[in-house]
Amino acid sequence: MIKTDILIIGAGPTGLFTVFEAGLLKLKCHLIDALPQPGGQCSEIYPKKPIYDIPAFPEILAGDLVTNLLEQIKPFEAGYTMGERAETLDKQEDGSFIVTTNKGTKHQAPVVVIAGGLGSFEPRKPPIENILDFEDKGVAYMIKDPEVYRDKKVIIAGGGDSALDWAIFLADVASEVSLVHRRNEFRGALDSVEKAAELAKAGKIKLFTEAEVKKLYGDDHLEAVVVKHNDPEKGESYVEVDSFIPLFGLSPKLGPIGDWGLEIEKNAIKVNNAKDYQTNIPGVFAIGDVNTYEGKLKLILSGFHEAAVMCQFAYKLINPGKRYVMKYTTVGGVEGFDGTKKEAKKEVVQSIS
Amino acid sequence: MIKTDILIIGAGPTGLFTVFEAGLLKLKCHLIDALPQPGGQCSEIYPKKPIYDIPAFPEILAGDLVTNLLEQIKPFEAGYTMGERAETLDKQEDGSFIVTTNKGTKHQAPVVVIAGGLGSFEPRKPPIENILDFEDKGVAYMIKDPEVYRDKKVIIAGGGDSALDWAIFLADVASEVSLVHRRNEFRGALDSVEKAAELAKAGKIKLFTEAEVKKLYGDDHLEAVVVKHNDPEKGESYVEVDSFIPLFGLSPKLGPIGDWGLEIEKNAIKVNNAKDYQTNIPGVFAIGDVNTYEGKLKLILSGFHEAAVMCQFAYKLINPGKRYVMKYTTVGGVEGFDGTKKEAKKEVVQSIS
Ligand SMILES: Cc1cc2nc3c(=O)[nH]c(=O)nc-3n(C[C@H](O)[C@H](O)[C@H](O)COP(=O)(O)OP(=O)(O)OC[C@H]3O[C@@H](n4cnc5c(N)ncnc54)[C@H](O)[C@@H]3O)c2cc1C
Ligand SMILES: Cc1cc2nc3c(=O)[nH]c(=O)nc-3n(C[C@H](O)[C@H](O)[C@H](O)COP(=O)(O)OP(=O)(O)OC[C@H]3O[C@@H](n4cnc5c(N)ncnc54)[C@H](O)[C@@H]3O)c2cc1C
Repeated sequence: MIKTDILIIGAGPTGLFTVFEAGLLKLKCHLIDALPQPGGQCSEIYPKKPIYDIPAFPEILAGDLVTNLLEQIKPFEAGYTMGERAETLDKQEDGSFIVTTNKGTKHQAPVVVIAGGLGSFEPRKPPIENILDFEDKGVAYMIKDPEVYRDKKVIIAGGGDSALDWAIFLADVASEVSLVHRRNEFRGALDSVEKAAELAKAGKIKLFTEAEVKKLYGDDHLEAVVVKHNDPEKGESYVEVDSFIPLFGLSPKLGPIGDWGLEIEKNAIKVNNAKDYQTNIPGVFAIGDVNTYEGKLKLILSGFHEAAVMCQFAYKLINPGKRYVMKYTTVGGVEGFDGTKKEAKKEVVQSIS
Repeated sequence: MIKTDILIIGAGPTGLFTVFEAGLLKLKCHLIDALPQPGGQCSEIYPKKPIYDIPAFPEILAGDLVTNLLEQIKPFEAGYTMGERAETLDKQEDGSFIVTTNKGTKHQAPVVVIAGGLGSFEPRKPPIENILDFEDKGVAYMIKDPEVYRDKKVIIAGGGDSALDWAIFLADVASEVSLVHRRNEFRGALDSVEKAAELAKAGKIKLFTEAEVKKLYGDDHLEAVVVKHNDPEKGESYVEVDSFIPLFGLSPKLGPIGDWGLEIEKNAIKVNNAKDYQTNIPGVFAIGDVNTYEGKLKLILSGFHEAAVMCQFAYKLINPGKRYVMKYTTVGGVEGFDGTKKEAKKEVVQSIS
């Protein structure tokens, strides 16, 4: 059982910044996310695109925003359960909650913060008859640890940035990389498309365009796939592989959270925005894109403010009766749980004559 | 009469970011501030100190935060009335407001946003009998335009960063710079103290320590001051000057805003934080440090979020019945009023074989 002060469901920008605000209050956090990497929509959907409305950043790439947030929260040593979906929420007699993931990992905390954005990112799966049989046995819809593919034969399907970027990355890791795409044209950042083209020319990526993976073979583990070409003259190719990775995008689904007895409106969780962003279940808060109230803006800066306000109230729940006096970070500095301390240089008091 | 869509009282971080959020909605802004420079507390009180809790900045100097905000809002060409205090608010028959400053400058807008922080920064004035007679006639409590002092004789009083920094700066501009301080020790950033010491040694700043300006002389304009030394043996010095600039700090006072019929609580303006941050006067909003509600955090990130939410409602007031569909800046880009356009690079759609 993983125990923490604040259990955060969702490691998007909102969940990440919550670690910082909680840390200032000396509260420890643990994050759960269905994705293998932190950053939510910013990392999964548009890591290479600039955002223009983050305050005091005239421009910042979504991926850099996430990198900066990770650096900012580092002193507070959050725990992570990544690549798992929070499935159930159970209130305990002592008032705490146990959250269990689809893989059975259990987490316990007095306060649960849902920062689930538009929902848990779930892969779009290609309609191949026996694909479920090979999940975790050669078939994966996202890449958690590329080292798993070292010296293996890999076939990736998809025509967007993720398919391109992973094909490029694995070209140096795997023994063989194939890339299958339904059309002839790829859609991605210019440099990704160009780099993939280079590697294809050099024979380091084997290309199948206007083609689809249609069948999977193997006993206990995937051994080969059949690629069917659109052009009937080209027919089918039988490709021996250890892994098949269809990267057709992930789409967010509110999912199990919808069954936790929370008040849902417009596919989002109603919260008390006049006060603390608490839901109808005391001790359970919802912040960022996942919540709703009159005038709600699904923007990154909203989650940041909601996190700061919410943490103050979580502090009171966790430390009943204890008085907390807020200090500006500029004045009080930031003390990490890792022993680091950042603080403003003191003024000098000095004679100059 | 200066006319605009949104009239913002206070050019602190909150007021500045409002220009950006309004600009995304194609609304023009004009800012009024009692200080000569934008940035509010960040510029006036701690420009050289690091802030640690601005989201996605593990550390940023308060002065740099202001610089970044100014760059971010540049495309939206806000107007500025600086160094003047908003004094009166008058509702017009057509529903708009006229705001007049202490210098008589008039501004008209359908929406007024009070982003006044802890209040209008007002100078602490030294207790010299006839000092009021020389205000704007040689005596100034803040420096709006240092060029005014070119080739003039200036005496600055104070022992903190502003006194040090302006003495250093004016050493290159004025014909003579004196610095008077009650004590022997100065309190400031290490490099300011060192630089001032160097200039004093080089004779470019004339130092009077353990001394105070006690009398002012002049006919229509200031001509000389008397500096009284603590040490009775040293007695008094008569110094011919064109300008006397006491820099004893500025302290914020809610001031005239307190008399506008707004609901005040704990020296701040009550707003409807459950919705739009409007005050009890329809059309008048209050955001940032100047407002209050249950759970309010007087933090910079709060003002940013409040500005974004408030602008959406201001849009509805200004454009009744018009539907606005929010677009992410990443998706829709940012179109400046100056003709500039920032937008994400388009994805390419390209064959790679
Ligand atoms: C193309 C695009 C452009 C955008 N541009 C801008 C912009 O310019 N400015 C701006 O402010 N915003 C923009 N946004 C919106 C912005 O990305 C979101 O507001 C922001 O990501 C919300 O952050 P969040 O942390 O609340 O949620 P998310 O980023 O959605 O993160 C939520 C995380 O929770 C996880 N999760 C949910 N449920 C579960 C569960 N049951 N178990 C485990 N994990 C779960 C998800 O997997 C996800 O990783 C844009 C969005 C898109 C798609
Ligand atoms: C030493 C110190 C350290 C801090 N550290 C942090 C930190 O680490 N993190 C953090 O988030 N916050 C910190 N703060 C607080 C932060 O500076 C404020 O939250 C922020 O400045 C509020 O911004 P604002 O724009 O709402 O108001 P302000 O910055 O106060 O700006 C308001 C402006 O309105 C003007 N004004 C008011 N009334 C009038 C009028 N009638 N006419 C004309 N002008 C008027 C004032 O002159 C002022 O310039 C700190 C503050 C101090 C003093």
